[in-house]
Amino acid sequence: MGSSLSSQSGRLSSSRPDIAEAYRLTASEAMAKIRRGDMTVEEYAQSLLLRIRKRDDVVKAWAYLDPDYVIKQARALDKIPEDKRGPLHGVVIAVKDVIYTKDMPTQHNSPIYRDDHPAIDSNAVAVLREAGALLLGKTTTTEFAATLTGPATTNPHDSSRTPGGSSSGSGAAVGDLQAPVALGTQTGGSTIRPASFNGVYALKPTWNSISREGLKIYALIFDTLGMYARSIDDLVLLADVFDLQDDDESDFAGLRGAKFAVCQTMAWEFAGPGTREALDKAVTLLRGAGATVEELRLPSEFDDLPELHETALFAEGRVNFLAAHRVGKEKLSPFLADHVVNSHGISRKQQLQAFDAMAALRPKIDDIAGQYAAILAPSVPDEAPEGIQSTGNAIFCAIWSALHTPVVNIPGFQGANGMPIGLSLIAPRYRDRHLLKVSKAVGELFEAEGGWKRVPK
Amino acid sequence: MGSSLSSQSGRLSSSRPDIAEAYRLTASEAMAKIRRGDMTVEEYAQSLLLRIRKRDDVVKAWAYLDPDYVIKQARALDKIPEDKRGPLHGVVIAVKDVIYTKDMPTQHNSPIYRDDHPAIDSNAVAVLREAGALLLGKTTTTEFAATLTGPATTNPHDSSRTPGGSSSGSGAAVGDLQAPVALGTQTGGSTIRPASFNGVYALKPTWNSISREGLKIYALIFDTLGMYARSIDDLVLLADVFDLQDDDESDFAGLRGAKFAVCQTMAWEFAGPGTREALDKAVTLLRGAGATVEELRLPSEFDDLPELHETALFAEGRVNFLAAHRVGKEKLSPFLADHVVNSHGISRKQQLQAFDAMAALRPKIDDIAGQYAAILAPSVPDEAPEGIQSTGNAIFCAIWSALHTPVVNIPGFQGANGMPIGLSLIAPRYRDRHLLKVSKAVGELFEAEGGWKRVPK
Repeated sequence: MGSSLSSQSGRLSSSRPDIAEAYRLTASEAMAKIRRGDMTVEEYAQSLLLRIRKRDDVVKAWAYLDPDYVIKQARALDKIPEDKRGPLHGVVIAVKDVIYTKDMPTQHNSPIYRDDHPAIDSNAVAVLREAGALLLGKTTTTEFAATLTGPATTNPHDSSRTPGGSSSGSGAAVGDLQAPVALGTQTGGSTIRPASFNGVYALKPTWNSISREGLKIYALIFDTLGMYARSIDDLVLLADVFDLQDDDESDFAGLRGAKFAVCQTMAWEFAGPGTREALDKAVTLLRGAGATVEELRLPSEFDDLPELHETALFAEGRVNFLAAHRVGKEKLSPFLADHVVNSHGISRKQQLQAFDAMAALRPKIDDIAGQYAAILAPSVPDEAPEGIQSTGNAIFCAIWSALHTPVVNIPGFQGANGMPIGLSLIAPRYRDRHLLKVSKAVGELFEAEGGWKRVPK
Repeated sequence: MGSSLSSQSGRLSSSRPDIAEAYRLTASEAMAKIRRGDMTVEEYAQSLLLRIRKRDDVVKAWAYLDPDYVIKQARALDKIPEDKRGPLHGVVIAVKDVIYTKDMPTQHNSPIYRDDHPAIDSNAVAVLREAGALLLGKTTTTEFAATLTGPATTNPHDSSRTPGGSSSGSGAAVGDLQAPVALGTQTGGSTIRPASFNGVYALKPTWNSISREGLKIYALIFDTLGMYARSIDDLVLLADVFDLQDDDESDFAGLRGAKFAVCQTMAWEFAGPGTREALDKAVTLLRGAGATVEELRLPSEFDDLPELHETALFAEGRVNFLAAHRVGKEKLSPFLADHVVNSHGISRKQQLQAFDAMAALRPKIDDIAGQYAAILAPSVPDEAPEGIQSTGNAIFCAIWSALHTPVVNIPGFQGANGMPIGLSLIAPRYRDRHLLKVSKAVGELFEAEGGWKRVPK
């Protein structure tokens, strides 16, 4: 996908194994090591590049990666005096290829934008860059982050399976230790689903809490910048830089005595055995840790959420893919062309009813979720399905995309084939920091006791 | 502002006065003339460029304009075989400088983006270009279309007065016959206010009915692409190309027998004598034409709309100007820096309450507006104020921006100093085509009888 890993320049300047294996570190760990002077950004970048070189033939997570440029950036970062270094100094970030980067192409996995290279940074990328992050490259996506057809990327835990989508490359790269953190986007389930399939953490923050400027638009009222990591601490790092702030500090003081809700959701019929077992086990683990877990059945007015989401989604796609349709109809997937010509026959009235009904449900879910430390719910139907053609079902994620709530995927469980399964934690809107705090405790529990162990290849 | 009018190439190839004065035509008239073979696109462009050259020293509507490139585009359009010409063949369009154009800089009137030139087309520009429009240049704006401080642009009807903002250049260019149509944006009153001040028509369509991709973001939930013209027919042309469609064809069959509402709005205390007289006169004219006009007092739950709008606006600015603040705080206006550091102390709770309260009002205004051919309301407090430092008060427009309804500014009235005053017509969401149909009849009446006459200099 346009990456040029064969032209990699430079070598690992140290033969110390801790540095050669630095690709295994979380961003927080790597940053600490760099801060202590135990590793340069260049050494860290070299470690990641070697990992990528070793694994790219199988995982194919990259739409664009220029190793020479990565090293050049790393050297520039190493030259910054210590007192001038940003809060993300040396953090290496992969960026989904629907997010604009002024120094790399942005191609949206669309032939219309092949090799397109607008010199513009998305708002999020500008913030990360200014904070001292090193942008590793662009990761694969389904077409415009809007179709269900996977790119060539495979699941790092089983290359015969999908890594999910639409943030396929970001989920796979973080799952495969090719990047410690990555940016994705979510309109339906494009951040949380790949997180579950690849066995990593992900945060879909409150809608519109981080600027979406410079993200390709599918549906304005849903699209959200998402982020992947292998630890909650890394997500907290990013939340700091993006100025994600709750009104009040979280009163969560650990699992013991905390009250959770477990919610099968109106999409429960789609849950396979892997997710059903994971949810049961999660409840048992939480209770074992001293938490209360209540079963939550959402009021019936939430029942239509999946349909409301789809109606608004298709109606917005009609608007936002109009230009691509006009410019290169023959290069647009029929699925998206159908949006533009309104093959689904969605009336304005239906569109507005969906838009208004979802709006009315948002304060209600805030009230409900506010009664708990978090709501625990499925992230996906089951482990990653076989094949890379389809990126899987997003119904469990779409609910929360529609409701604008923050969601964290917590890995830790596994399915019948030993593939990772994650679960979602949900909080009211703008309780992102609280949710991360809860997620840290829950993540430690699930990772320790859930049954799935990351087995780095 | 970076325009280079002195380097203009080419000359008017005809000495026929009708072509020399082609700049006076509406886009529809110019297109018809071109279609008949009575004028080339190049001749038309030359006429506009001469007009601009004559007037630019006073009006200063342009942030960027390259006459050589305009002529080059015009010649390319003239070479397209007749059967391959697009629906906007030869329509010349000015583009507000917060809207990305791949072949021109986009500078947002921000020193952070001075001479910035990302090679990317906004969705709307791509659609216009593909339809055969000629992009004339970039028009001035307040900083990021988000401050109240005017650029150097003056009102074409009195250079001691503001053309309004934030779409200052687009409003002034169309008012001054420098462009037949122009794109603007509206978050508060940025499209409708300049339309009133410059004596032109403008459509702020239903929120999210035209893709906002490639427009600088101030507030996602309000920002809307707007458009200026000197005739409703021209706005209809654009509505066609942007695929603006209502569910049902309008049943409006002329003013006689039609039922209008006149609504002073909760902001009436801000209305000056010019607007009060205009509204009275408008009602008299409509009744004289056989229409019924009922006084509409919005239910009290609408009273807080201006405050709700401002709360959500500032809260969104906090998010969307974060990158600019990080990259170049010292180059950001204090007004916008205050958004980012939340000087207004807006809590997440207040932000969500504003967001949800506005959402709840939208279906209600649809129901109310649906009972009338249109709601008639003030566009602005009065004629354009003196001075160009402040772009004026947007409160009358912000109401409808918050409610997502389409609005058309209808010119035709004048204030105490002979400056134009327009009035707003409002319809339910996604009744844009109906609103344009009503606006055509109302516009003809107001332009004929309202008292203000366009006096081309």
